[in-house]
Amino acid sequence: MNKLIEQIEALQDIRAGLFSKDFLLTWEKSDHDLLMILEVASVLKQMRDLNISPRVFDTGLAVSNFRDKSTRTRFSFASASNLLGLSVQDLDEEKSQISHGETVRETAAMISFLSDFIGIRDDMFLGEGNRYMREVAASLDESYAHGVLPVRPGVINLQCDMDHPTQSMADLMHLKQVFGSIDELRDKKIVMSWAYSPSYGKPLSVPQGIIALMTRFGMNVHLAYPEGYELIPDIVKKASAQAKESGGGFHVSNSMEESMKDAHIVYPKSWAPYHIMQRRTDLLKKADRDGLRDLEQECLVSNAKYTHWEYDHAFKALTHDQNAMYMHCLPADISGVSCLKGEVNAEVFEESRLQTYHEAGYKPYIIAAMMLCYRFSSPAEVLKKLLEHNKSRIRYV
Amino acid sequence: MNKLIEQIEALQDIRAGLFSKDFLLTWEKSDHDLLMILEVASVLKQMRDLNISPRVFDTGLAVSNFRDKSTRTRFSFASASNLLGLSVQDLDEEKSQISHGETVRETAAMISFLSDFIGIRDDMFLGEGNRYMREVAASLDESYAHGVLPVRPGVINLQCDMDHPTQSMADLMHLKQVFGSIDELRDKKIVMSWAYSPSYGKPLSVPQGIIALMTRFGMNVHLAYPEGYELIPDIVKKASAQAKESGGGFHVSNSMEESMKDAHIVYPKSWAPYHIMQRRTDLLKKADRDGLRDLEQECLVSNAKYTHWEYDHAFKALTHDQNAMYMHCLPADISGVSCLKGEVNAEVFEESRLQTYHEAGYKPYIIAAMMLCYRFSSPAEVLKKLLEHNKSRIRYV
Amino acid sequence: MNKLIEQIEALQDIRAGLFSKDFLLTWEKSDHDLLMILEVASVLKQMRDLNISPRVFDTGLAVSNFRDKSTRTRFSFASASNLLGLSVQDLDEEKSQISHGETVRETAAMISFLSDFIGIRDDMFLGEGNRYMREVAASLDESYAHGVLPVRPGVINLQCDMDHPTQSMADLMHLKQVFGSIDELRDKKIVMSWAYSPSYGKPLSVPQGIIALMTRFGMNVHLAYPEGYELIPDIVKKASAQAKESGGGFHVSNSMEESMKDAHIVYPKSWAPYHIMQRRTDLLKKADRDGLRDLEQECLVSNAKYTHWEYDHAFKALTHDQNAMYMHCLPADISGVSCLKGEVNAEVFEESRLQTYHEAGYKPYIIAAMMLCYRFSSPAEVLKKLLEHNKSRIRYV
Repeated sequence: MNKLIEQIEALQDIRAGLFSKDFLLTWEKSDHDLLMILEVASVLKQMRDLNISPRVFDTGLAVSNFRDKSTRTRFSFASASNLLGLSVQDLDEEKSQISHGETVRETAAMISFLSDFIGIRDDMFLGEGNRYMREVAASLDESYAHGVLPVRPGVINLQCDMDHPTQSMADLMHLKQVFGSIDELRDKKIVMSWAYSPSYGKPLSVPQGIIALMTRFGMNVHLAYPEGYELIPDIVKKASAQAKESGGGFHVSNSMEESMKDAHIVYPKSWAPYHIMQRRTDLLKKADRDGLRDLEQECLVSNAKYTHWEYDHAFKALTHDQNAMYMHCLPADISGVSCLKGEVNAEVFEESRLQTYHEAGYKPYIIAAMMLCYRFSSPAEVLKKLLEHNKSRIRYV
Repeated sequence: MNKLIEQIEALQDIRAGLFSKDFLLTWEKSDHDLLMILEVASVLKQMRDLNISPRVFDTGLAVSNFRDKSTRTRFSFASASNLLGLSVQDLDEEKSQISHGETVRETAAMISFLSDFIGIRDDMFLGEGNRYMREVAASLDESYAHGVLPVRPGVINLQCDMDHPTQSMADLMHLKQVFGSIDELRDKKIVMSWAYSPSYGKPLSVPQGIIALMTRFGMNVHLAYPEGYELIPDIVKKASAQAKESGGGFHVSNSMEESMKDAHIVYPKSWAPYHIMQRRTDLLKKADRDGLRDLEQECLVSNAKYTHWEYDHAFKALTHDQNAMYMHCLPADISGVSCLKGEVNAEVFEESRLQTYHEAGYKPYIIAAMMLCYRFSSPAEVLKKLLEHNKSRIRYV
Repeated sequence: MNKLIEQIEALQDIRAGLFSKDFLLTWEKSDHDLLMILEVASVLKQMRDLNISPRVFDTGLAVSNFRDKSTRTRFSFASASNLLGLSVQDLDEEKSQISHGETVRETAAMISFLSDFIGIRDDMFLGEGNRYMREVAASLDESYAHGVLPVRPGVINLQCDMDHPTQSMADLMHLKQVFGSIDELRDKKIVMSWAYSPSYGKPLSVPQGIIALMTRFGMNVHLAYPEGYELIPDIVKKASAQAKESGGGFHVSNSMEESMKDAHIVYPKSWAPYHIMQRRTDLLKKADRDGLRDLEQECLVSNAKYTHWEYDHAFKALTHDQNAMYMHCLPADISGVSCLKGEVNAEVFEESRLQTYHEAGYKPYIIAAMMLCYRFSSPAEVLKKLLEHNKSRIRYV
């Protein structure tokens, strides 16, 4: 408990600027911002273990707007909202009458009269998802400025075409936990590698989010993919620049084998090539079903050339101590389990399975930390009061 | 704050009879009832601005039963429920096994064992929606009388075939706010006008709700529509009688131009003709798809004759000070924005857009006020205690 | 109130072992376990009537996973969760990306990071539903043991292929209420009878749950069905053995007439034959639509031979005092109301309709009792503290 109090007091030295700022891309946030999120999330997690309720909202809505399927992030958002006292209200666009264009602005206002947060997943259309979030945010600014809204709801990116910040921050929290501190991550080699999958059209946000975040802490980041499976060039450039600035490294390779050598951490995961996603976006906009079918076929044929990009014991044997830490955002395509042949060998996955559950388990706290830091100018003050108040989450237990 | 206390104390002079009475049609309610709702909603809104939580329920369910699509009202109902401490549980008839006829009675009981409110939208079938609500209400009466239910849940009409009381009351609250008081509305000319839309089958409940409510406060209500676009005759008769009683006016015209002259307030909005809705109801009951398609075609052809019923600068120029207050329940069919040609010119809409957001923003408080007045015999007492208790909605802020 | 305190204190004599144990099958629970559930449910129901909030959770999620349609149980689970302070988060598998096999284990962990309960309905596949629940439970055990989860969520069976324990326990609570005590049920004749329905594929869990529960309390249980409409043999054997042990009776008959004679309680309800459900399960697994259509046809033809298995006045006249207590899990197939010809005559049903509502009304309290007994080692202690704390569910009322 004393250690927890110390940790909370140390928050006051972090010069974060998260108050009243949406969380849309990690690379718009300062290092202090990110450290603050990690620390607040850590405190919230410890409070949970101590059965202390960090409820700061007596009532209030957290709106979720999932424009693509989700289990993990949906439950993480629901858990974070509930932890702080908010009720989730889903904006189900099928049950609504929402058109495109002008009315994004209107809808944003209509769902926000008594809302505190809007969490959005929009990862289908390249160049669209993050822009949609900003359109929502701009509308909230306008409505708040004109007194339409009593409080300005915060917007949280639950995965877009560019970034998946609640995932990458949970991954970073996991790394910090395993290696002991952020400083210990310096010079560690992390490989964000493409891996084979029999499916198609997986978003780019996870690999982009990982390289754009991990290059900021002096890590030696390796990005590996078969020729043609590029990510959005601007984000790759940003990762490279950040690596230079942080004293880390950033390397791109077209060989899984080469990149795995001496890796401390590996993140083998499938994604669709950038140029395919662009064509897919155009076809989706035109609702061109035949074109989409052809593109899928083309993409699967291309994927099939790289079935050897499966993370297996041979690859693992190349890594540091033949035992690199394995990461995945889940669900993984596990050969012989969820598909015939996929991203990872079944035994290799099993060796790290529970670690990936731990990894996923940080996400609710990361989201709750984002919420707390958005709403309160001094999270440290709030956490201290919560600890003093010491309200049981489960009473009489 | 002192002003707020005064406002609450003044509630005691309003002789409302809302306690334990469902809210199904505004014209079943006394003027005092309606004033009470407006005042309680106003107090709740001010409490929100002061970060005071009006939570009166520690736990409890508010059931929503949307038999048609909804965004605004869905979020308003969720917000109101949450504001008072209730959790929304949606009765999704697709995920249920609900038959017609006898079992409405049964379902009503089954969803109510620990429920405090049931909000219903049922606006598709003429002659059905309001009747359905009464069938639910009768079942609740029976189950409560026989001890099946520990409390009798209140029923709130979230739009039916006849009325849309949470909308019209929010509209009235908006008018009161803009004009300063209900008394100031006397003799003001409000035009409820049909407007062109490229869509078909829009419910009659908004125009009916507006003319049936605004004629009660001495307003000069004008109803305008192209020949053939009549509303339910009984409700029009009621509006006319009420206007006489309240010292206001009620006029029906088939000219948008004529009706707009010197209007203080305009409400241009599309609806389907009454007789079309009757035929549509018959076809829907028979599940006659071909018939429905033909009827839609017929209706769209008819609409197309009236594309000049678009509220634009020319019409606006006819109004009082060339600047009538513009109202809409949203979403509006905005020419060049949400459709090629619609109810309102884009520039004209933009001039009042934020005002329509304010208008919509009253709905959550109207619904919460309906709930509070249903459950408590003296809302004034409760509001006073809430103010004294002064619990923060957001703690440590 | 004094009586309530006495009832709570008497709980300390019940040697239940429900703490941290999932509720999957009544026959895995001791008599003391079941009595404890009944008593705790009764106390919670009385607290509701006294406007006392039994909220023990400040926050927390209760996950519902309905793999089949549900109204009654869905609302009961939501009500129970809400009563204790939990928010329901639905795992909607259509909005998720959930595969079969390995990933049940993974999904179970992913939805549980901040969850307290998982309620599951899975009654479509014979041999699958209960197994699925155990697969979820095993995953939770593993994740909790490895520190992935801060608390181990309890699993509650909301209907599987074998049992429907929240239904049968609510039924037992209703019987106890009507007859005065569990002891009074001794030697009472209860008839669980198949009844005609024009539908097909109704689960076996209710009749199985009833015979497996009621044989434990010295009741004289009669199971009646037309030849060929057998239940799962193992469960029938268990019922028979339990009847011997409890000093009750268990009889199987192929005559509705014979079984109804002198019955104190009748439960006429349709189900699909065991062997049909097995074939259906195979066809469902193969997604063999033609096969399923043929099987449905075959089953309906078979059903049609037994339209006289409709509980009507003639059957009722055979029962004890010509007035046996009528039970049903609802919705019943009522002749002339919800179908042309069904399980029960309309007048006969009407004579007991409100009693069936009472019967259904116990389910939320049964589920809440299961939750309380799972989470707290001494429910008596907790209930006493709740009573002392005496927090109003509705404040200022």
